[in-house]
Parts: sequence; C-alpha cells; structure tokens
Amino acid sequence: MSVSVGLGRVLEPAGVLPQAAWRLDASPEIGADEVRIAVERLNLDAASYRQLAEKHEGDGDAIRAEVLEIVGTRGKMHNPVTGSGGMLIGVVEEAGPESPLGLKAGDRVATLVSLTLTPLRITDGLSAWDGKSEQVPAAGTAILFGRSVAAVLPDDLAPELALAVFDVCGAPALTDRVVREYEGEKTVAVLGGAGKSGSLSLAAARLAGARTVAVVVNDEEAENIRRNGLADATAVADARDPVAVARAVETALGAPATVTVVCVDVPGCEHGAILATAAGGTVIFFSMATSFPAAALGAEGLAADVTMLIGNGYLPGHAEFAVDLLRRVPAVRRLFEARVAGH
Amino acid sequence: MSVSVGLGRVLEPAGVLPQAAWRLDASPEIGADEVRIAVERLNLDAASYRQLAEKHEGDGDAIRAEVLEIVGTRGKMHNPVTGSGGMLIGVVEEAGPESPLGLKAGDRVATLVSLTLTPLRITDGLSAWDGKSEQVPAAGTAILFGRSVAAVLPDDLAPELALAVFDVCGAPALTDRVVREYEGEKTVAVLGGAGKSGSLSLAAARLAGARTVAVVVNDEEAENIRRNGLADATAVADARDPVAVARAVETALGAPATVTVVCVDVPGCEHGAILATAAGGTVIFFSMATSFPAAALGAEGLAADVTMLIGNGYLPGHAEFAVDLLRRVPAVRRLFEARVAGH
Repeated sequence: MSVSVGLGRVLEPAGVLPQAAWRLDASPEIGADEVRIAVERLNLDAASYRQLAEKHEGDGDAIRAEVLEIVGTRGKMHNPVTGSGGMLIGVVEEAGPESPLGLKAGDRVATLVSLTLTPLRITDGLSAWDGKSEQVPAAGTAILFGRSVAAVLPDDLAPELALAVFDVCGAPALTDRVVREYEGEKTVAVLGGAGKSGSLSLAAARLAGARTVAVVVNDEEAENIRRNGLADATAVADARDPVAVARAVETALGAPATVTVVCVDVPGCEHGAILATAAGGTVIFFSMATSFPAAALGAEGLAADVTMLIGNGYLPGHAEFAVDLLRRVPAVRRLFEARVAGH
Repeated sequence: MSVSVGLGRVLEPAGVLPQAAWRLDASPEIGADEVRIAVERLNLDAASYRQLAEKHEGDGDAIRAEVLEIVGTRGKMHNPVTGSGGMLIGVVEEAGPESPLGLKAGDRVATLVSLTLTPLRITDGLSAWDGKSEQVPAAGTAILFGRSVAAVLPDDLAPELALAVFDVCGAPALTDRVVREYEGEKTVAVLGGAGKSGSLSLAAARLAGARTVAVVVNDEEAENIRRNGLADATAVADARDPVAVARAVETALGAPATVTVVCVDVPGCEHGAILATAAGGTVIFFSMATSFPAAALGAEGLAADVTMLIGNGYLPGHAEFAVDLLRRVPAVRRLFEARVAGH
C-alpha cells in the first residue's frame, strides 16, 4: 500500500478505511500526497436523495438540514440509511507535492470517488440549495487522497452534464469490457434502459457489437427509447417479476441475453436478470439495491451458470470513455440534457 | 425459458417462481422433463430447525407436527418464519424422457437445490423421526424440475461427508474456473482458508497452477493449514481489517494476489479483499455476509481495477469436481472427516 488510501483522515473507528469510517477528519490542511478542492456543487446519489425526500415528504428545508447534519457529524456526505453518497464538482485549490493525480491549482474537476469516503466541510449552510433536487450548490472544501480519482471537466460540456455522466461512468466502461470478451453474435439486455447508467450502457453495448434490448417499466419510457433509437428493441416489464422479465427479453431477442445489465434502483431484480441471461452469460449488477444473497442463492436455485459481477464504479479511463459516448451518440446526449434540464 | 423452472408446479400466487410461491403442487405424477425421487431423509436448514425447536421448546412431537403441517400446506418444506429450507437424500423412482439431469431409476442422490423450491409430499407422518434433530428420516416423494440440480452420492464416501462437500461445492469449481483464466504466474489468497469452502478453494487454486496463501483468524488455524500442507503460505489476520489483510497477503506473496477468495462468513470483509488484490485481478465473494454496496463503493473508493464476482453456488459439474478434490487431496479429506465427526 505504497499510495495513500486516506487512513490518516479516519477519526473513528480507528484503523478502518475512510468509507467504512463513521467519522472523518475534514480539516482543510493537506498532506504531501493530498489535494484540496474548493467545492462548488454536490451531486447526491439518487437512492440517498430519494430516501431523504421520502423521509421528509419533500420538505426542502428539512432535507437540507439533514444533509448539513450528516456532513457536520460524519465529515463526509455518507447517508447512514442508504449507505450511499454521490460526487462533487469544484476547483483545485492546492495539490500536495507528492500527489500522483496530475492535478494543479485552478483545474475545474469532478471527483469520481464516492462522497462516502471524501472528507467534506460545508461553509455556506447550503444556503443556495432549495433541497428540491439532488444537485446541491455548495461552498466548502473537500480532500482527495493519493489513491483517488478525479476528472478535469471537459470544455465542450456543461458542468452539470459532465457531472451527471461521471456519476455513472463505471457502468458503460464495464459493460464495454464485458461485452467485448464475448466473441461472435451477442446480445445485451439492460434493465432500466431509460435511466442514466442504463442509456449509457445501451450505447456502450451497441458500440461493442451487441444487439440490444431495453427493458423499461412503462410505455412512456419505451416510446422515449424508441424515438431516440437508443436500443434495437424495447420491452415493458416490471423488473421485479422474474418470469415477466425473462419472457420480455426472450421475446425481444429470440433467446436469453448474452449479457444482462441491471440499472434499476429497486430491490428484487436479481432473479429476473439471472433468468433472462443465457448459460455462460454474464449479469452485471449496477443497482445499489442489489441483494448479494438473493443473487447468489437465486442463481443456485435456478441452476443458472451465469457469471455475476458486482458493478465496480472504477475502471481506468472510465470518465473519458463515458464523455466520449455522449459525444458519439447524440441520443444519449439528448437524454442527459433533458434530465439535467428537468431538475 | 425453454427448460422448465417449475412454473407449472406453482399454485399460488400464480406467475412467480417456485421459491417465491406460497404453495406448490407436490403431486407425484411427473412431467416429461421432471424427476420423481423417493425420499429417505430431509436435512433441515440449521436456522429453520432452530426456530422450530425454540418455538416448541424442544418438544419433538410438536416440532414434527409443525413440519408436517408446513409440508402439507405449502407442498414444500419452506419454513415461513426463517424463509429457509434445507436439502434431501433419496432414490430416483422415475425420470421423465426429456429430463436433462442425467439421472436414472435407482440412483441414490442428494438434491442441491433448496427445499424451499422442491415439491414435497410426506407419506409416513415422519413416524421414524423423534423431532430432536435436523436430520429427518422420511418417506414420500419429491420432484426435480428440468432445470434443477442433484448429485449422485459417491460409493466411496459416507453420505454425511458427501453432503458436507456438496454444501459448498460451488466455491472450488468457480475458483478453478477463474484461476485458469489467468495466464502465467499467478497467486491466490483465500480469506477463511481453514473452513470447508476455504480449504476446497485452496486445493482447487493450487491444482489450477496458483501459488496460494491462506489467511486465517488465529495461530491454531494457521498451524492446522501448515501441518496439512493445504497452502503454500499462511497468514494470520482479522479479515475485517482491510489494512491488516492487505499487508498480510503482500508479505506472504511478495505482492497483492491475482485472485482473492472470500470464505469468511462475517460482515465487513469486502475492503480487505479488494485491497489485497492486484490491479486486473479478481475477487470472488462466497460469504453470504457480503454487502453489495460495500464491495461496489469500496472498489470505486480505492480506485481498484478488480473484477468482483458474486459467488454462484452452481456450475455444471461442481459436485463431481468437489468430490474429486476430496479424493485427490488427502489433507482436505481429513479436514472434512474431522468436521463431520465433530458434529
């Protein structure tokens, strides 16, 4: 462990990694391999924001107060209920002389490691945020460790757009890698194909040579996919209904999928994904609502010889890959622009 | 779904998979791709038996009556409180002409899919069972679907020994497959190497050409591994301490492991496994205590380019593979015999 993973920032319990910590030291003084960022905006994880919004019945002031309390208590925006965080955007204030990240003061960056392990201090009381959306204007400081990931914001995309893309950029990169491992004819089913990670995964799968089907929850989403030509086929099914999902995919593709990508952020999608996947195929779980035992025992109970991947949010070059997808596939860009504008 | 997953056996609610069903049709007439088994013994899941024993304060007659009631009502031994089942041993009575399982009348088999999805009819009132143990002598019939798993009991192993091996047979088979995907020199770290799935995984990794290290919780386990020559190196570390695990593995192997296998059934082992694995390597999680978000966010937060697999309990040929390991590696057989005798 020659490169720092932030152990020195952990206050309690001692000796654990920053993500597992209850509380981090978010003070702005940096170590030799750290980087300090002046925060401009937080992008809360969707599951985290939804939990807060539901708990407080959409009351923006109460949501804002709870976010401030979490950050104040934990030294990071780590939702204790969902276990999830998000990411942030800001400007590099100072890079330690031994930082390996290649950043310099003045670079406008997005952090691509989760807020669940990023030391964070808020100094403006989030006064510019109405609490009504997961995009949070903020002032304060955040710290990057030696072993961390941040991407300089591209000149040709609005920061909000780049952030929305970076937030899910692991999904298309891993989809690309897995699909390319299969030779010959191959198919990809994306559960939740109309969302951010889903639409990027669809685009990546097609560019990697697969025939694709988007499985979505209603006709409106299906029509949106069709109008934008985002997938070769669309199917409407409740992702929590294994039989319905498997039938929808088989009907659309003529057979189970080579690769199934789960981008639906609700519990109970494991068995449908497994049943919709061909023997020898792969299921990639990107939803944080995935249950490990449900997936493991489900595949065993269905005698399904499928490889099941925990969607890793990091691959080398994933941010550039996702931004490039947005540039190459206008339909994906339109979808992201609509989502960013809609908030 | 060209191969039956038992949808035709589901009585209520309609349209769900057998495991999710409240009630199955357990009638003994089989479909063309089904197999009927004459039941000899049920092995109730430990959690299920414990719940029943505690509820009835150890009253064997009352426990027996409730098991009969569950099976009579649900058409399967699916404990409604614990949600768990168990497995069974019996003799094949009849295999439908289209069954793909390769079984024939007279084969003595263990079912490797859970009792929670196996249609079951009891015909002897469990009269030979005193209700005092999870091992239940029984007469009746059970049904295997087209897509199901059963293993013929080997002649050269006691049934108890074979069952103990079958219980964890997915781990060595998947370890073998993953290790063989890596070319050249490779190393494997097994967290929890002294247990059933851990020792089989160590043996499989070595036979697949890897140098191995067993990470265990105390000196007694380390000495046991060393005495039996089960691994090329041993290290003592708390698997929940990421920094300790990574240091132990790096010290033993000289570098992070190509493949790390997690067989420790306690929460919090995800980050140590990730940190102990080389870039481009693979972590296989077999512990049901694995947290999906902890693994996904952990790898992202550590900027770790590792493939993370959900340990699938099923691979074609997994039972035969594990039994063969027991035959080839006397140290593993000794370990299993000691564990079975200890119960």
